[in-house]
Amino acid sequence: MLLPTLREEVLDANLELVRKGLVLYTFGNASGIDREQGLVAIKPSGVAYERLTAEDLVVVDLDGKIVEGTLNPSSDVKTHLLLYREFPMIGGVVHTHSEFATGWAQAATAIPCFGTTHADYFYGEVPVTRPLSDEEIEADYEYNTGVVIGERFKTLDPLAVPGVLVANHAPFAWGKTASAAAYNAVVLEYVAKLAFRTVVIDSEAAKVSSRLLRKHYERKHGPKATYGQRDS
Amino acid sequence: MLLPTLREEVLDANLELVRKGLVLYTFGNASGIDREQGLVAIKPSGVAYERLTAEDLVVVDLDGKIVEGTLNPSSDVKTHLLLYREFPMIGGVVHTHSEFATGWAQAATAIPCFGTTHADYFYGEVPVTRPLSDEEIEADYEYNTGVVIGERFKTLDPLAVPGVLVANHAPFAWGKTASAAAYNAVVLEYVAKLAFRTVVIDSEAAKVSSRLLRKHYERKHGPKATYGQRDS
Amino acid sequence: MLLPTLREEVLDANLELVRKGLVLYTFGNASGIDREQGLVAIKPSGVAYERLTAEDLVVVDLDGKIVEGTLNPSSDVKTHLLLYREFPMIGGVVHTHSEFATGWAQAATAIPCFGTTHADYFYGEVPVTRPLSDEEIEADYEYNTGVVIGERFKTLDPLAVPGVLVANHAPFAWGKTASAAAYNAVVLEYVAKLAFRTVVIDSEAAKVSSRLLRKHYERKHGPKATYGQRDS
Amino acid sequence: MLLPTLREEVLDANLELVRKGLVLYTFGNASGIDREQGLVAIKPSGVAYERLTAEDLVVVDLDGKIVEGTLNPSSDVKTHLLLYREFPMIGGVVHTHSEFATGWAQAATAIPCFGTTHADYFYGEVPVTRPLSDEEIEADYEYNTGVVIGERFKTLDPLAVPGVLVANHAPFAWGKTASAAAYNAVVLEYVAKLAFRTVVIDSEAAKVSSRLLRKHYERKHGPKATYGQRDS
Repeated sequence: MLLPTLREEVLDANLELVRKGLVLYTFGNASGIDREQGLVAIKPSGVAYERLTAEDLVVVDLDGKIVEGTLNPSSDVKTHLLLYREFPMIGGVVHTHSEFATGWAQAATAIPCFGTTHADYFYGEVPVTRPLSDEEIEADYEYNTGVVIGERFKTLDPLAVPGVLVANHAPFAWGKTASAAAYNAVVLEYVAKLAFRTVVIDSEAAKVSSRLLRKHYERKHGPKATYGQRDS
Repeated sequence: MLLPTLREEVLDANLELVRKGLVLYTFGNASGIDREQGLVAIKPSGVAYERLTAEDLVVVDLDGKIVEGTLNPSSDVKTHLLLYREFPMIGGVVHTHSEFATGWAQAATAIPCFGTTHADYFYGEVPVTRPLSDEEIEADYEYNTGVVIGERFKTLDPLAVPGVLVANHAPFAWGKTASAAAYNAVVLEYVAKLAFRTVVIDSEAAKVSSRLLRKHYERKHGPKATYGQRDS
Repeated sequence: MLLPTLREEVLDANLELVRKGLVLYTFGNASGIDREQGLVAIKPSGVAYERLTAEDLVVVDLDGKIVEGTLNPSSDVKTHLLLYREFPMIGGVVHTHSEFATGWAQAATAIPCFGTTHADYFYGEVPVTRPLSDEEIEADYEYNTGVVIGERFKTLDPLAVPGVLVANHAPFAWGKTASAAAYNAVVLEYVAKLAFRTVVIDSEAAKVSSRLLRKHYERKHGPKATYGQRDS
Repeated sequence: MLLPTLREEVLDANLELVRKGLVLYTFGNASGIDREQGLVAIKPSGVAYERLTAEDLVVVDLDGKIVEGTLNPSSDVKTHLLLYREFPMIGGVVHTHSEFATGWAQAATAIPCFGTTHADYFYGEVPVTRPLSDEEIEADYEYNTGVVIGERFKTLDPLAVPGVLVANHAPFAWGKTASAAAYNAVVLEYVAKLAFRTVVIDSEAAKVSSRLLRKHYERKHGPKATYGQRDS
């Protein structure tokens, strides 16, 4: 079987979404890429998480050709593949319809950075894509979902802002690995929940200052990171 | 015992409502129909889910006559029966007072289709009935609850919109089978929750375009469905 | 030991509050009365639910004298006792700071009857007391909490409306037995949650008609009740 | 190993945050102090709660020097230490990003005392700090987070108001011991949740009277306390 280690990590990334309450039934999917071989392992479409095994994962190449697996890949596979091609620094992609992030996506509203929880993981607002045009929906919908994400990130660093809201749809998140992508999807949902509470309490709540944003982001990322045990 | 297989499926549909947090105490009920025999198996009234067995289910004919069972059927049995008569393509009916769907029903407000989660399962808004008149309440309340649902669906396809909000009351959902009805009740609650979050974030949130609505609905339903493993 | 059966029921009523998520730490308390002996069994003050046993319950007479027990009774005991004296038809009292009912109590707002879930158990709005005066707070606070409840129920039937919101405080609920009181406290919290969702969706949501209110209440209560297995 | 008893209590205070749903992943931290020795035991930075042991805790002196431990202390250690120096009567400090309290902190809004649940534990509003200046963020961020808390408490008694919201950040709570600090953090989150519900129901909701505030606070604290079993 191809990519046994990646399969295990992608399986665990999928199950992390269940453990953290981000998925209902078969909603949502996670994938991971082996950059050397140019192969992606992704959740099959419509398979229950309780029964999911590493063997069930479908391995496709970057053009979407099934290389190994007897099941259909996630119906969102073309979005995943476009993200891997557009963002060469990422190693995992996660898509969910998690409750609060989807609320923001359905409102077609970027999540403002209201606090340090957000700033720790997303360097600025969680952006929202433009809606797809009727032509984009009709022609090649899942591919074009990736296109509008790529468009939105033309001036953004995907590792500094590891997630996005697709308007009228739901969030995508990513990271250096499939595990990191799942982690970022969970944090994105948490940040979306905090921001929801914040705007209810004060609809005019102010965003954090650019100084505080940078401070917190750099505590956890980059050469000056002080969080965790990386320096020890 | 009549209908042993249907009883098992209806029991499981009832228990699925518990597993997914849709019912408190004995609120809610699920039924299924054997179209050949014209018999319906339904939850007995006021029996705790923890103790519910397949044998406890009550079998009634389409006129409500008890054919097998020693317990009273759900007090909503007449609504179920009218739905089976009105919608010949359905095989299961579920009624709950689930938290968010009931919030919308109490506000007598249809749930707008704000996103693809909704569009995947409901082809358009989740409609709301008109309130029952005083005469309808007095004369034959549970039957008339079915009447106002039927009225609301005169121009709708019950399989394309597998649920409804009864004004000032709560949701009903249905499907080709009792399992599908329970699944649709769970998804309806999720969709109601997402829509609640959406209107709080933006009270003027826009509905999805008709193109996106059709695209997502057709990804999961009909001859062009690409979701899941049905093509494999 | 006095009242072994009542103690078991009161213990279970207290634990039901935990099972249904109505209490945090030692918040909340349930009691039950033996009307023949004029004795009340009540939760001791500040004891963790996990460790609570039937023996820990404190038995007091209707004047608050401890008849059996080595622990202090709940600090709200005087409110319980006044309710037993004012409402001779009740057999159990429950007090919680449950999340949504307390939200309404803190807003000093009665819970309007927006739907049939509410109408099934509360015949009309869940009323709110007036705030206590400074003198009432100072002189005999817990007793006067009962006084303002009694005042509010001068024209209400405590069994038709088995609960109340004490302004700036939290709910009390009651019933014919301690079990019924706990059940009503759980339903009150659920009704408070549904009403919260309703007013967020539509701040002008309409109350149910008096006809629908009566219909649903009578389905579950009184001589014409059709719900459950009582007629079988 | 130094401070074995304190380590166990601080470990349990950290785990209480998990048990009560206040932390996601490694967010949040608890510490405790041995006043005689002037030593603080604190959670290491970025270590998963599931794996956390008493041995993993880091012991630092009040200047932040590591006295025992091989891991990095929590990145918030300087805030904890300043609080121990500013508030000589406290024995434990907890920091979380709990959902509702962080919502209020992000809205930079003090939590008004809307009810007795709040009054039982916080004698007045839960205050919010001013935002840190750019200079304070740049120079010594975690230390200055403690500075703005201390500033806000110049005229407040830290044991009567055992918590604070840091604007655009999240809550800190404290108490006479690490256990009490964790307990207060849990209650603060509960109070924040109740107040959220209250302002949604009535954006003009009134605060409790000063008499009611004092009455409830004194029921649980001080020489006239009547709650619990302390007098028995």
